[in-house]
Amino acid sequence: MITSTLRRVLFWMVLLPGIVCADPLPSWQPGDTKRALIEFVEGTTTVGSEDYLPRSQRIAVFDNDGTLWAEQPYYFQLAYALERAEKADHSELPETLAKALERGDIATVLDSGVEGLTALLALSHANLSVADFQADVGQWLGTARHPQTERPYTAMVYQPMLELLSYLRDNGYLTYIVSGGGADFIRVFAEPVYGVPPWQVIGSLGELELVEEAGRWVTMKRPGVAWLDDGMNKPLSIERVIGQRPAIAVGNSDGDYPMLVWTTQGAGPRLGILVHHTDKAREFAYDRESHIGKLDKALDEAGPRGWIRVDMARDWRLVFPPQP
Amino acid sequence: MITSTLRRVLFWMVLLPGIVCADPLPSWQPGDTKRALIEFVEGTTTVGSEDYLPRSQRIAVFDNDGTLWAEQPYYFQLAYALERAEKADHSELPETLAKALERGDIATVLDSGVEGLTALLALSHANLSVADFQADVGQWLGTARHPQTERPYTAMVYQPMLELLSYLRDNGYLTYIVSGGGADFIRVFAEPVYGVPPWQVIGSLGELELVEEAGRWVTMKRPGVAWLDDGMNKPLSIERVIGQRPAIAVGNSDGDYPMLVWTTQGAGPRLGILVHHTDKAREFAYDRESHIGKLDKALDEAGPRGWIRVDMARDWRLVFPPQP
Ligand SMILES: [Ca+2]
Ligand SMILES: [Ca+2]
Repeated sequence: MITSTLRRVLFWMVLLPGIVCADPLPSWQPGDTKRALIEFVEGTTTVGSEDYLPRSQRIAVFDNDGTLWAEQPYYFQLAYALERAEKADHSELPETLAKALERGDIATVLDSGVEGLTALLALSHANLSVADFQADVGQWLGTARHPQTERPYTAMVYQPMLELLSYLRDNGYLTYIVSGGGADFIRVFAEPVYGVPPWQVIGSLGELELVEEAGRWVTMKRPGVAWLDDGMNKPLSIERVIGQRPAIAVGNSDGDYPMLVWTTQGAGPRLGILVHHTDKAREFAYDRESHIGKLDKALDEAGPRGWIRVDMARDWRLVFPPQP
Repeated sequence: MITSTLRRVLFWMVLLPGIVCADPLPSWQPGDTKRALIEFVEGTTTVGSEDYLPRSQRIAVFDNDGTLWAEQPYYFQLAYALERAEKADHSELPETLAKALERGDIATVLDSGVEGLTALLALSHANLSVADFQADVGQWLGTARHPQTERPYTAMVYQPMLELLSYLRDNGYLTYIVSGGGADFIRVFAEPVYGVPPWQVIGSLGELELVEEAGRWVTMKRPGVAWLDDGMNKPLSIERVIGQRPAIAVGNSDGDYPMLVWTTQGAGPRLGILVHHTDKAREFAYDRESHIGKLDKALDEAGPRGWIRVDMARDWRLVFPPQP
């Protein structure tokens, strides 16, 4: 009796998603790109298919900036750091940087090099607990607005990518973020916005220390970057944290090139996806010459390596979620 | 109609585990310890209970050596490193260490300090790909035997802990390993033996490099320890990888003390569990004076801090799984 009930339970667990979601990717235009995405997911999840993957191998990794949300005119985490640095005591910054900050000269700030940026980040990202940092980021995300669209930053996520994340999870994939941005920063909004829990966020790491304050042990953020999760480091952090090669990697810049190569060179079915910012009217158009999200080598190799190039202008019916 | 079916599905999903498993912890003796474990799990998973935790907060972290499997007369990963080093060209080891290795003098090997142990580990844990390393560990685990029990090492896991892991997972907990042992090593057997997938294994990390071999990109293990996941580093790796404070922490030595303190100081329901090796007849008896798995400070503080002390002799009906 249990067996027959169990069978019925399993039957409905399999069938329900199919009934509820007719088109799992409604914001994707019909065409080759959408077809290739669905074929890969159906091929790897249909029992008996030659590309079938057991659940333990259904891992998808997504870059964040420029892949899941926008990154122009500069990284949103940098917008946070700039706003906080302006209000903080920034008298110990190098003079050029302090002046650039005061007159809102972002180009000069971006050109201040690793040392300058590290000093700038330290004003907001160091010498407070992870919990306090995340509370402050949450407050900022609730009030800050993008300088051009005037949307909240969390409303500048890509609707088609939200659908792809859900579609993959509905098919038994674990969806990880693997970002050059800070893990502590992304974790503040990854779960409510992307449906990605904190433990599926991999990112850059600041120095961290366990300190005792009045008998209570607290994880404190310290100045300095302990791990910059970009380029060659992305496959390494995936190996270290996830412990296996993903089936799917999604990125938008040359910083994702090693992750895309390493993922798609694995045996069996693998999928590389490159988001190409081609839509000046609805978002931004940039690639080979951009200071942020430079896409050059990976763009050249997408074709030869069989990756899907997502042309935002052509493939997406909608870029951002409708605003309430 | 879908709604009524869905309701039935959910009803059975909730009820079935209760029907199938009358006693979730059959290898635990009845008594205070077993009662406290079950009360905590029921309190945190029963809707309406004042200790109720949503699933996103049900994280349990387990030390491995001495907590999930045995660690005497020395760590099993060290047994692997010693066997491989004996067979490898060890002419570049410091002379005292090389000679101790040849005559099987483990005490001298253990006393050779960080430099000696690093050189020893490099003979088996470096200059090969993660995939090749894991294949070799798998082969070793299939044939090696514990020097005293003559069991395979993977049969020296604790049956009561296997039941606790399953019981927690059946109640919506994610079960993580947070070990001083190497993550790459533990991942070889964590899924088949503990039911813990690779991405829920946190451990010590060797240096790692992404290299290209004949056009193929491979993650290569390199000499040196990049992260020693013990003591104060355990809370830091949990913060970095999981991104939140666990609800449950389980350990057996002073190396787990910071993890236990930090976990149980969190707001809301938290549980600390300390495995105390008291059973010389069935396993090993050691604590304050042991070179491996020293338990001193954490033992003193277990009572005042309200942690459960698991007395292996008193609380476990069975230590190791029955052998076929
Ligand atoms: Ca990017
Ligand atoms: Ca231990």
